[in-house]
Amino acid sequence: MPLLVMKFGGTSVADLERIRNAATKVRAEVARGYDVIVIVSAMSGKTNELVGWVNETSPLYDAREYDAVVSSGEHVTAGLMALTLQEMDVPARSWQGWQVPIQTTSQHGAARFVDIPRANLDAKFSEGFRVAVIAGFQGVSPEGRITTLGRGGSDTTAVAFAAAFDAERCDIYTDVDGIYTTDPRITSKARKLDKISFEEMLELASLGAKVLQTRSVELAMRYKVRLRVLSSFDETDETSGTLVCDEDEIMESKVVSGVAYSREEAKLTLVTVEDRPGIAAAIFGPLAESGVNVDMIVQNISEKDYQGSDKPVTDMTFSCPVDQVGRARKALEAARDAGSIRYEKLEIDTDAAKVSVVGIGMRSHAGVAARMFSALAQEGVNIKVIATSEIKISVLIDRKYMELAVQALHDTFELDKAG
Amino acid sequence: MPLLVMKFGGTSVADLERIRNAATKVRAEVARGYDVIVIVSAMSGKTNELVGWVNETSPLYDAREYDAVVSSGEHVTAGLMALTLQEMDVPARSWQGWQVPIQTTSQHGAARFVDIPRANLDAKFSEGFRVAVIAGFQGVSPEGRITTLGRGGSDTTAVAFAAAFDAERCDIYTDVDGIYTTDPRITSKARKLDKISFEEMLELASLGAKVLQTRSVELAMRYKVRLRVLSSFDETDETSGTLVCDEDEIMESKVVSGVAYSREEAKLTLVTVEDRPGIAAAIFGPLAESGVNVDMIVQNISEKDYQGSDKPVTDMTFSCPVDQVGRARKALEAARDAGSIRYEKLEIDTDAAKVSVVGIGMRSHAGVAARMFSALAQEGVNIKVIATSEIKISVLIDRKYMELAVQALHDTFELDKAG
Repeated sequence: MPLLVMKFGGTSVADLERIRNAATKVRAEVARGYDVIVIVSAMSGKTNELVGWVNETSPLYDAREYDAVVSSGEHVTAGLMALTLQEMDVPARSWQGWQVPIQTTSQHGAARFVDIPRANLDAKFSEGFRVAVIAGFQGVSPEGRITTLGRGGSDTTAVAFAAAFDAERCDIYTDVDGIYTTDPRITSKARKLDKISFEEMLELASLGAKVLQTRSVELAMRYKVRLRVLSSFDETDETSGTLVCDEDEIMESKVVSGVAYSREEAKLTLVTVEDRPGIAAAIFGPLAESGVNVDMIVQNISEKDYQGSDKPVTDMTFSCPVDQVGRARKALEAARDAGSIRYEKLEIDTDAAKVSVVGIGMRSHAGVAARMFSALAQEGVNIKVIATSEIKISVLIDRKYMELAVQALHDTFELDKAG
Repeated sequence: MPLLVMKFGGTSVADLERIRNAATKVRAEVARGYDVIVIVSAMSGKTNELVGWVNETSPLYDAREYDAVVSSGEHVTAGLMALTLQEMDVPARSWQGWQVPIQTTSQHGAARFVDIPRANLDAKFSEGFRVAVIAGFQGVSPEGRITTLGRGGSDTTAVAFAAAFDAERCDIYTDVDGIYTTDPRITSKARKLDKISFEEMLELASLGAKVLQTRSVELAMRYKVRLRVLSSFDETDETSGTLVCDEDEIMESKVVSGVAYSREEAKLTLVTVEDRPGIAAAIFGPLAESGVNVDMIVQNISEKDYQGSDKPVTDMTFSCPVDQVGRARKALEAARDAGSIRYEKLEIDTDAAKVSVVGIGMRSHAGVAARMFSALAQEGVNIKVIATSEIKISVLIDRKYMELAVQALHDTFELDKAG
């Protein structure tokens, strides 16, 4: 029988009525002839409550106990979903991670999948069970302890099951009805996409469109799992939502598919740094160790001598989230005090935002960057930093211009028009 | 190293502060040189919340899913207790039922222990872990699904671990400071017992003294596990609470140890029943099948003929909880309609209460019943039904005399005086 994976996030199973609503969607797919693997998150708020208790008990907690506590939220939802389906005469049972077993590494709180053996579930499907309800976000370590995958891990669980069980599709039910060309709160012209490629989705996800977790998209791309994002709260059919798929499935694609943004960015510049081999590692190594997520990096060409010596010097600029600036400053000052790097001063600008245009069409179309920069220039938006990849161009700008920039770029690339 | 089992009920782990308080008691025992197995219930209220969700989802629920949902409350407490102990520098880890594994039968919701293999816990103790925190009230079936033992199963879990690990003692921490000669709310003369025998405790537990679950006392008696009942909320030391133990440990015992009562009892009499072999089975079989907990049974001597025939007839009287009277009536009428029993009428008295005196000393002391009956007569209390066992005499009386009867019996047997 063809198989479908359906994942319901925390808001989609927040109470018994929503669980019933979600179960109705599962029953509809069973009626269409699918066997279904349902992945559930904890009821929204429950995981935060459990995490709160752990943090209050033990600020530097044992991650194995954290996982044992926090995983229980999904156990509750999985059981309730199975019961709800049974009430609808759909043969279903729940599976906790260790029962499948979902084998993971021992990195508690951030475990990765090792294997999802099919035997146990396949045996139940062949007995006539039509639905397996899986507690998302968790697994079991080689030592037999419960692991969790980290926040958002339920999306990853869904994709991993879809890959392991050759699912026809992996449907991610959430509180939005699909992926948009940009945030509809910023421009009413934002348009829902019918399809988007994995590569584009990956850029959008990591750029701040919080619908899908980056790791789940990576995994889907690697195993060619067709992902669909759709709303739990609307009536849905087979054409609802946005399909995230291989670019081969997308017949006609625009040069730019979407405009993403990230509001709370900071720009840091190390002024007059020695320009020598290994200097980048000496700077960014300590930042990474301190947990600073460095995003864009720009190194100016060497132009000055260091304090009158004949050694070449440069300026090094990078961006990171605003709330990591303190940590970044501390790491850089420690590195200077330890003598591993030298710099004249550290300039910090915490009033930045990042705006990006994303599209696989860029690979075959020149001039996208030029169109982007001229659109921003026309609106008087000054660009602080530029970074590009094959399918993305990002700029750091003053935060106050962010909405204006998103709107201008959405217009310039005509994202409100389909096809 | 000597080993202790310590069990904390729902009110003893109701919030993080109480968990810390309980952990302090565990730490004290570790400091005294014990390895400790801690059994925890769910935070009070949590199990009810989970049960409520299950019932609302599916009134005739799949008990396997019920168990999967409801067991999660103990998982949370076990993890939090382990973290709290770690914060106190006590090497501890949590164990869910399937991790030990606590092997049970497949009777979901009312599973019974099959085996508790020691290997996993012993390995951890030999690595230097001093405390194993076990999620109470649960186990795993031969099919690999989570089972629960039914309400109060955490006491039973504690005793089973104490037996399996040859514990020196099994301490049950609860919201009372021990076992009393009777309910202190009924007479201020009620006195806390230092020791009580398993047999007496068993009679008291099944008679309505709700401190310890009957099954846990049965299990303790069979495996000679010394049980101690004491308060989570008081300062405690090695002499606190009440020790439930083999009668050999109790040097001097009074004839009567305690007075128990049960307030909501009903007396039912089948008037003019055929007195023939098998009639008791024909009456009490259907009652048992309908879930009526018949307690006392009295059959009057045959004295009448049945409706002029020459067959001997009798009256049959029994008691059951008031809230089961409707079910009892229905079962008896159905049996009469089916022709399996015949009776003239069914008299129902729902204004009864049961009062019992319990004591192992009765076995060697005659005259206890006579003293009891005369004490009640002096107060003008009429006795409706009498039932006796080796160490217990119970009477059914008018409910309005219940407090009076308890006080009179407590005085008569001088239970306010020690030794």
